[in-house]
Amino acid sequence: MIAIDWGTSSFRAYRLAEDGSVNERRSAPLGILAVSDGKFAEALESQIADWLAAGETPVLMSGMIGSRQGWREAPYASCPAGAKEIAASMVQVSWGDHRSAWIAPGLTCRDATRVPDVMRGEEVQILGALDQLSGGGRSLVCLPGTHSKWAAVEDGRVLDFATHMTGEVFAVMKGHSILGRMMTDAPVDLESFEAGVRRAREPGGLLHHLFGVRTRGLLGDLANERSASYLSGLLIGHEIASVPKLAGNVYLLGAVQLTALYRVALRCFGVEASLLDPDAAVRGLYRLAQSLSRH
Amino acid sequence: MIAIDWGTSSFRAYRLAEDGSVNERRSAPLGILAVSDGKFAEALESQIADWLAAGETPVLMSGMIGSRQGWREAPYASCPAGAKEIAASMVQVSWGDHRSAWIAPGLTCRDATRVPDVMRGEEVQILGALDQLSGGGRSLVCLPGTHSKWAAVEDGRVLDFATHMTGEVFAVMKGHSILGRMMTDAPVDLESFEAGVRRAREPGGLLHHLFGVRTRGLLGDLANERSASYLSGLLIGHEIASVPKLAGNVYLLGAVQLTALYRVALRCFGVEASLLDPDAAVRGLYRLAQSLSRH
Repeated sequence: MIAIDWGTSSFRAYRLAEDGSVNERRSAPLGILAVSDGKFAEALESQIADWLAAGETPVLMSGMIGSRQGWREAPYASCPAGAKEIAASMVQVSWGDHRSAWIAPGLTCRDATRVPDVMRGEEVQILGALDQLSGGGRSLVCLPGTHSKWAAVEDGRVLDFATHMTGEVFAVMKGHSILGRMMTDAPVDLESFEAGVRRAREPGGLLHHLFGVRTRGLLGDLANERSASYLSGLLIGHEIASVPKLAGNVYLLGAVQLTALYRVALRCFGVEASLLDPDAAVRGLYRLAQSLSRH
Repeated sequence: MIAIDWGTSSFRAYRLAEDGSVNERRSAPLGILAVSDGKFAEALESQIADWLAAGETPVLMSGMIGSRQGWREAPYASCPAGAKEIAASMVQVSWGDHRSAWIAPGLTCRDATRVPDVMRGEEVQILGALDQLSGGGRSLVCLPGTHSKWAAVEDGRVLDFATHMTGEVFAVMKGHSILGRMMTDAPVDLESFEAGVRRAREPGGLLHHLFGVRTRGLLGDLANERSASYLSGLLIGHEIASVPKLAGNVYLLGAVQLTALYRVALRCFGVEASLLDPDAAVRGLYRLAQSLSRH
């Protein structure tokens, strides 16, 4: 089979053996935003024409390729959902000479007051990481990033989840607010990062704590090259502080550097998180292919 | 006397009678950022040369003119502080032929964990509004804006205060984040604003609630032209939710439209706020002049 993780800014393709092991992998900066005029079939062929010509099937895709801006919108499946429910909501695209592919849907849930949340792509990563979760009971899986996701998982299904705009708020505050004026591109300073996390646990609220990034700099309490690290800790700390029922088995799934920071932040909350193998999307797509073939 | 409220983007001058009543007022878009090469004396003369030539004294100024980027830095006075303490920290500038003016300092305080906060200009507005506060006991004065201030005032002195980056976070999220993409410049929709305030009172945290602005739009729960109003209510709601000891006499001091919105938001928290006369800076400078002349 062919598994494709096709996001906003990147394209990653994997050719898998029957047992799910990866025989070959390719990637390109060919995210859906780089594809014009809806020419997704052409973009796909430009990357893996040889695999397709060799008759490798099925082709399964996940990520923003299934969004309104992608190849075809794959409507969100509703939580709770596992491989079976997600596979049942996949949509098919076809092109050329009898070629076709499946696109995974995203997931949606509504909280106690009916406010909706969505994910697209992360649900497949979670499926791919299920084997690494300790069996029995509820696990919390955090996928940090521009829009961090916290998913509650039990018995192979995502029960519900919440998205936090942590990464994007960091980027816009650094890039466009008065806080960014004093910031440098120095590497992360762990001490300042942890000071930010601890600050998040104090009263005052995020909007007030943000101004403290400026005043601490202004009054000489925080060096300019540490300011971004403190802000990062402050935001990640506020994210973690608002996760309900933060206990039990907590896992981190994502890029190495970011999950390492989240692990440090979680320790400030007394929580020891386990790191999941970041290459989970391909295993999730393999699991979906198995679900598809069973129905 | 001459009272001058000189901020980042605007210049406002008042010529006062002995009893503090305003005889004449002038304003110009001549904030400190519009003055180049430190030519503040020239800028001042360009606006009120005739008043100065007539020998009108003293000249008192407040606002960012006393910041590091202004005419001369007037170091922050420490809380608690009233007219006496603030007057004692004023600094003097002189120019030309025996001309001089006083610049009010800002205020600083530190919270329980020694994180500093600062204001510059608002302290003079608060002094100018003291007569409108009900005597006896602690009052809370909120000055909404780009950087909203909440000050606890008692017996004519600012006990302490906290700044919230509410206005700036609204601006950068609308202007530079994914949330802004769906927003229009429609006038404030009160119903959506109040829905945002109510959302702020629910669990989940601000970083999660922010993503809800997007998901509610995405799933059709919130029309694009209402999205900015909802975000505004959400942020102001989070600001209010984090004000400690929000009870007793609560006052709003600032521009009419914004204080009206804050009043609506405070009502969602069961708090009835009184509006203070927004023209308070000039009365505060008058009070400082009286303090100066007494010492």
